[in-house]
Amino acid sequence: MTSETAGPQPAPPPGPRPRPGGRTARTRRQVLDAALAELGAHGYDGLTMEAVAARAGVHRTTVYRRWRDVGGLLADVLDAAGTDDWGPPDTGSLEDDLTGLNEEIHDALTARPPVVPALIAASFRSPQAAEAQRRLWDDRYARCEVVVERALARGDLPAGTEARPLLVAATAPLYHQLLLLGTAPDPQLARRAARATALAAAAGAFTGRQPAADT
Amino acid sequence: MTSETAGPQPAPPPGPRPRPGGRTARTRRQVLDAALAELGAHGYDGLTMEAVAARAGVHRTTVYRRWRDVGGLLADVLDAAGTDDWGPPDTGSLEDDLTGLNEEIHDALTARPPVVPALIAASFRSPQAAEAQRRLWDDRYARCEVVVERALARGDLPAGTEARPLLVAATAPLYHQLLLLGTAPDPQLARRAARATALAAAAGAFTGRQPAADT
Repeated sequence: MTSETAGPQPAPPPGPRPRPGGRTARTRRQVLDAALAELGAHGYDGLTMEAVAARAGVHRTTVYRRWRDVGGLLADVLDAAGTDDWGPPDTGSLEDDLTGLNEEIHDALTARPPVVPALIAASFRSPQAAEAQRRLWDDRYARCEVVVERALARGDLPAGTEARPLLVAATAPLYHQLLLLGTAPDPQLARRAARATALAAAAGAFTGRQPAADT
Repeated sequence: MTSETAGPQPAPPPGPRPRPGGRTARTRRQVLDAALAELGAHGYDGLTMEAVAARAGVHRTTVYRRWRDVGGLLADVLDAAGTDDWGPPDTGSLEDDLTGLNEEIHDALTARPPVVPALIAASFRSPQAAEAQRRLWDDRYARCEVVVERALARGDLPAGTEARPLLVAATAPLYHQLLLLGTAPDPQLARRAARATALAAAAGAFTGRQPAADT
């Protein structure tokens, strides 16, 4: 598990990776790697089909034909990132599993070049990229549900605890603080958010329907 | 307190409002209202200085001279939104105060036209708007700290509970779910996030330095 491939965030792995398939698969991988590198270097506004083709060493008509535009390219980057075999930590403790997950998100959101923030920012520009981004997050959160299932099986959580809202609560402060509020990297943030959510979950905060307001 | 002016989010009030000051203040208000209306109608990509000037009934050279570009205009919209007298709910209960706050954020993030999401999206485009957005959030969170101080004074929270991380934890799931994950409006979300955070806070999750990992 590397910090770059992990978590509900969409970080695709940099550098070498297996290149299954034939020439088409190789070309796709080259182009998507080039798109990521260009995005990291220049952001969405500096991302062009021409520069991606040049960096990938592929003719630009190939890139236009297969991906049509920058939104299509980024959507495929995100879809490709979802085909890895990433899984969440398994430490034997809910708080530690969530902390490990959050540390991966923290690293991805603060890495240089800021590829993951650029992909998320791109999803505010391209509806196609936004859909792919949400598919990827949905898949990542689905993979993380086992963290909650294991805690339930250990008897560490009240019966009926729902995985998805728990996982969103645990990870949301990372995205909010690092991406929206723009605060500096915070070495306490991953554990603090994990611990708060584990404490809330143990107290029954995520067990199905909420009680009505009691005031 | 209205749902549009409230919360850590930057929603500026729509419709009539006091117009203190002379002609300069009136012109500013007209232009900023027009910028918001154009942003809500067309998004950042459709926002032009010309359209804002035309909608405001102000000569476009006035708009260019004072705000220079769309980023400058949106930064001023956000700065102006921070000059209201908004304050957080005061219900006598931490969970209910946070729920009220979150309901305002929920309403702002799901309102039509989507002015607040468009302002946040614009902050990914314009560094000047991003800085203004963060100033506004910082001011809103600072105003909300009284919610935690009151809970401490009532003896409802452990001594040493820190306000800011508690407030970020309470509100982050709203932004994450509605803005980034793009889920549908969720009538349970405001209270669920408030309740989880109040339970975690009561259990000591936000009391200063976190303990080291114990695994």
